[in-house]
Amino acid sequence: MTTAVPNMLSTYPADLGGVDRNKLATCIEECVNCAQAGTACADACLSEEMVARLGKCVRTDAGCADVCATTAAVLSRRTGYDANVTRAILQACATVCRACADEYERHADAHDHCRVCTEACRHCERACADLLASLG
Amino acid sequence: MTTAVPNMLSTYPADLGGVDRNKLATCIEECVNCAQAGTACADACLSEEMVARLGKCVRTDAGCADVCATTAAVLSRRTGYDANVTRAILQACATVCRACADEYERHADAHDHCRVCTEACRHCERACADLLASLG
Amino acid sequence: MTTAVPNMLSTYPADLGGVDRNKLATCIEECVNCAQAGTACADACLSEEMVARLGKCVRTDAGCADVCATTAAVLSRRTGYDANVTRAILQACATVCRACADEYERHADAHDHCRVCTEACRHCERACADLLASLG
Amino acid sequence: MTTAVPNMLSTYPADLGGVDRNKLATCIEECVNCAQAGTACADACLSEEMVARLGKCVRTDAGCADVCATTAAVLSRRTGYDANVTRAILQACATVCRACADEYERHADAHDHCRVCTEACRHCERACADLLASLG
Repeated sequence: MTTAVPNMLSTYPADLGGVDRNKLATCIEECVNCAQAGTACADACLSEEMVARLGKCVRTDAGCADVCATTAAVLSRRTGYDANVTRAILQACATVCRACADEYERHADAHDHCRVCTEACRHCERACADLLASLG
Repeated sequence: MTTAVPNMLSTYPADLGGVDRNKLATCIEECVNCAQAGTACADACLSEEMVARLGKCVRTDAGCADVCATTAAVLSRRTGYDANVTRAILQACATVCRACADEYERHADAHDHCRVCTEACRHCERACADLLASLG
Repeated sequence: MTTAVPNMLSTYPADLGGVDRNKLATCIEECVNCAQAGTACADACLSEEMVARLGKCVRTDAGCADVCATTAAVLSRRTGYDANVTRAILQACATVCRACADEYERHADAHDHCRVCTEACRHCERACADLLASLG
Repeated sequence: MTTAVPNMLSTYPADLGGVDRNKLATCIEECVNCAQAGTACADACLSEEMVARLGKCVRTDAGCADVCATTAAVLSRRTGYDANVTRAILQACATVCRACADEYERHADAHDHCRVCTEACRHCERACADLLASLG
């Protein structure tokens, strides 16, 4: 689908605070996508026969979903931009996406939903790192 | 972008509980999209000169964002599906999207971001209503 | 602890829209508390040996946490109060708290955390119902 | 009110991963409290006559609420504890609470709700710092 992210950024009635608009749009989209994938993957793990060995995976998924959703929200607000807050949440988001993807990769052969989620996490981790680097 | 929603549903390791998969995927995608648009629109209103008259709009936006995000999460979980919970949150989501779009339409001529957000809300309201109707 | 809820309501710079302040404060506090308990209980279930039979419990917990957190946020915003939105989210919250408590009660003998969570859900369900009734 | 936090921690069916239980409980409670206060304060600002100068305050409030809620959720999950994720989100939370309190203090004389919220932010910032320090 075409998300509202680019249109919301291009209709923002003030300056974006010097942030690279494309990297910002990509990062918001990847965070939003990863949040949904993490929630869905945590739940899918619960329906696996081997759920007893997936506790860490479910927990990491859920945390990843929360942090990604919060990062998307923080990035979506441009009024009164605060670089310190933006950097701190982007670092937390990249960290949790990497932890989540590393955990998934131990199961991705066995579980297709973990493979889908790993991709979402790696994309999100990269988008956070790209945006962070561009912030200087 | 291509969201992870269809792939997460198609790799879910158990039955989806008789829900129409296409309507479900659309509804999750619209909820996720509307949540982001609501957060961004609430913030964009804060940068408008006439913000003093946009208090209700900002508040409705923020509530819409919260309810849409929660609805996306509840719909993304399929394990132990509970029809009463699903129906109640879909009804709340359709209600808040309609309230939000009605409020936006009072400003959509003046503010492009409100117009973008109105579309997201109307799409989400319709997707919730469609999914609700299909649940019987 | 003493929450900020009563003080935030008493320092709100405008009329509360005719809502009973005590019922509102109680409802916000119970929603916030139940959201945390639901998140913690979902996770505790993952550490139980019998987790394979707790899938529905974990899912219901997580949904309850999301809906309660959203309800607390919607109720905490008083500007541009919308009775339809408030009623719809309170109904959804009461529904999910009841579903969650009913599910927990099947495990509450075996798991102390489910017992703690059941209490939080029942309190929250009642607070939502009380506030709903007072809205007329 | 007595929150469910201590009881949920004491009924957790496995080891807490070496975390100081009291510091953890305090930090979860302060995060939950600050999330609610931030949401309520952002909304209260919208009802102030001088809202046009409160844009940054509303935005910082909303971000603080999101990050605090996510931090409370991440901390409430103990299964498969990951120290890197915990540290990153605690750092982000302390950063946003400090930014929010610094912003509030510019308005706290004028607005009682900003004063209440400043206290919640300072308590939360300190609780995050204490827990971080105890993690080594």
